[in-house]
Amino acid sequence: MEPYELTASQASALIAEKKLSCEELARSTLARIEARDPLVKAWSYVDRDMVIRNARELDKTPPKGPLHGLTVGVKDIIETADMPTQHNSPLYLGHQSGQDAACVAVVRHSGALIVGKTDTVEFAFRGRKAATRNPHNLDYTPGGSSSGSGAAVGDLQVQLAFGTQTAGSVIRPAAYNGIYGMKPTHGAVSREGAKNTSHTLDTIGWYGRSVDDLALLAQAYRLFGTEAARPVALKGLKVGLCPSPAWQHADAYGRAALKAAGRRLEAAGAIVTELALPAAFAGMFDAQNTIMYGEARGALLADYLGPRSHLLAEHYREVVGNLHGITPQKMCAAYDLAARCRMDFEALFGPGLDVVLALASPGEPPQGLGDTGNPIFNSMWTLLHVPCVGIPVGKTPKGLPLGVQLVGPRFADDRVLDIARACAPAIHENDALGVIEPA
Amino acid sequence: MEPYELTASQASALIAEKKLSCEELARSTLARIEARDPLVKAWSYVDRDMVIRNARELDKTPPKGPLHGLTVGVKDIIETADMPTQHNSPLYLGHQSGQDAACVAVVRHSGALIVGKTDTVEFAFRGRKAATRNPHNLDYTPGGSSSGSGAAVGDLQVQLAFGTQTAGSVIRPAAYNGIYGMKPTHGAVSREGAKNTSHTLDTIGWYGRSVDDLALLAQAYRLFGTEAARPVALKGLKVGLCPSPAWQHADAYGRAALKAAGRRLEAAGAIVTELALPAAFAGMFDAQNTIMYGEARGALLADYLGPRSHLLAEHYREVVGNLHGITPQKMCAAYDLAARCRMDFEALFGPGLDVVLALASPGEPPQGLGDTGNPIFNSMWTLLHVPCVGIPVGKTPKGLPLGVQLVGPRFADDRVLDIARACAPAIHENDALGVIEPA
Repeated sequence: MEPYELTASQASALIAEKKLSCEELARSTLARIEARDPLVKAWSYVDRDMVIRNARELDKTPPKGPLHGLTVGVKDIIETADMPTQHNSPLYLGHQSGQDAACVAVVRHSGALIVGKTDTVEFAFRGRKAATRNPHNLDYTPGGSSSGSGAAVGDLQVQLAFGTQTAGSVIRPAAYNGIYGMKPTHGAVSREGAKNTSHTLDTIGWYGRSVDDLALLAQAYRLFGTEAARPVALKGLKVGLCPSPAWQHADAYGRAALKAAGRRLEAAGAIVTELALPAAFAGMFDAQNTIMYGEARGALLADYLGPRSHLLAEHYREVVGNLHGITPQKMCAAYDLAARCRMDFEALFGPGLDVVLALASPGEPPQGLGDTGNPIFNSMWTLLHVPCVGIPVGKTPKGLPLGVQLVGPRFADDRVLDIARACAPAIHENDALGVIEPA
Repeated sequence: MEPYELTASQASALIAEKKLSCEELARSTLARIEARDPLVKAWSYVDRDMVIRNARELDKTPPKGPLHGLTVGVKDIIETADMPTQHNSPLYLGHQSGQDAACVAVVRHSGALIVGKTDTVEFAFRGRKAATRNPHNLDYTPGGSSSGSGAAVGDLQVQLAFGTQTAGSVIRPAAYNGIYGMKPTHGAVSREGAKNTSHTLDTIGWYGRSVDDLALLAQAYRLFGTEAARPVALKGLKVGLCPSPAWQHADAYGRAALKAAGRRLEAAGAIVTELALPAAFAGMFDAQNTIMYGEARGALLADYLGPRSHLLAEHYREVVGNLHGITPQKMCAAYDLAARCRMDFEALFGPGLDVVLALASPGEPPQGLGDTGNPIFNSMWTLLHVPCVGIPVGKTPKGLPLGVQLVGPRFADDRVLDIARACAPAIHENDALGVIEPA
């Protein structure tokens, strides 16, 4: 096994035992990137020499904790002190802020090795697409907007990577790339230094190759209760299988994936029942859209007024010009509906419900790179501010991964991770067995 | 009259008519700063030569709108491309990010002249105090955390300045410095590039010397409905005088100021009635505190883990270490109470209520610089996300200013400004007449 094939948790143990050096891991990672990047195009920036220099420095330093030496990719809307941050926008070509975003600083101070910047949809907001391809089938999208981060982890080019989710940009690419993803409780991880679109929605998230990998970062950010894993018994676990009010947007593979995940958990002893959300939740999709466009108006204004604003795509002019017709009344109604649904959602949990099982995407990724997929199975959870953990389920006959997500109440990131750790081995069948036939 | 004495709106008209050059205004401003800074200490950074160079450039450029050439100070937790951003923290001594915060970029692109950085409470969050003194009486605090911005505008050293409000850091210093202040609807102005403490609370605000000055910036940020002022008749205006559940924290001068403002509006034809908020609002002070400390935990983590964290005050270690005992349950309860109170507050408006009149501070500013004053008359409005406009009322016998604020529903920034424009001449008596005796 080459070092690049190790999960973050596996490598962390080997580095702690001094059976693997940071430089070995870095060189293996860079070799994998060199071999695969011409095909997958996950990266917008990698400085090979700097990565090796930094890995050597880490080898000279006493380990700072479990992230020491682990390889991390950073979505290119998140600032890095020593690399450009270009937002996949001609406006920011070569731009370098000279400081780390808070989420990057935390892992860097914890000893992680920042490998490079990953390609993204322009400003992570429905603009120019990333050049990235799905590593499982190059003719298909890896999803977006965290396209490069999802594909790089899915292609074993890096162990961990940051994404951001405003509608569905962390959990959907996790599904499309066959990997694990986490969108923590909104606001629990600082977004300072990540491009803003919508302060109510923008959430820093991350990818890994196992639940333990995801937990390493949750712990680094000191999310409530994540200091130590607590074992969860699958037997008797109350799982609410939630088709979501968007069920009609799921394709046959998506539906089959959710049902398969439910069946597999049931076979492993869980009590799986269908969960219907209260009727008001059907308004959450429009509410998410209103808030996203309403808040983006102000977020994009500075770029819109700048001297090089002719480089800004027409889409952004429409947002700032409020062609979406957002009004104060619509904004308040959207905020208030979201607040009520948050309370209603959390009231569902208790003796009868431990966790919600839901689709992570509508199903098979779209063909080509022009469409990164529909975020409708994510946007409601984003607006609910609740923690979501994406888990792979299997693959379609074309070899394209499918995924589901586990969802819990706000700030129960620890509990959702513990439950995901118990559920993942049941849900995630290996590639050879995991072909999902349409339901 | 020297150019530095002009309000932003007055100077804007003269510059448009070419009766005043940007360079003249800049030189007059710099002379005022030079004369007064040794006493007031409002600034942490002014590059005199750069200011004059930039003013000359503006004189060569066709005016971009009403902000052209106007002088602006920037609180030193807000990034500026061409000046350091030091957060009044030894951790950030000499730090320069190389990019403008969104709020700065918008006014710079609109032709404003950035004069310098103003001193602040460390990270705008209960740390090391600014060196700034109250320009009306140097033995007293100018308030905080936007200490330098409030004092610089109050001392006629600059026309406009940015502050930030997480508890009461924009509107309270407006009162203490005898000036106008605006805290717009939460999130309507992008906070990108301003130091984060609490994403639910942090709000960019600004100071000016008249309501028209405040409106210039509201317009630059394209807040809903601010394209043009709409006249408001004082006669018949329904004003709810709100003592707030914190009334017992007001001193005799504060109480007198609020009552005087109410009497003066009544004398001018408004219908002023006392407004009692529903009982649940009494929980908003604790909720604001819980959210502020709970969110600051994550916001300060990167600095706490950094190699120079020994330079971080003990206070911040306590926040990251969660010595305030914040729990998921407390966070959710605080968020949900705030959401319910937002709905309840807005339901008060309608035929019987146009605007709320409330205290902007407990009363006279504290003596000395160790205590910047209690934010309890602001923190509830900050958490409600509603627009607030601070208006001076008069002075205590020691020559210290007192202020009130007008408050409206979310996104009614335009309406609150229009109402403030009508109310300010009645509320704000000039210095000679405005001595407020304790009630």
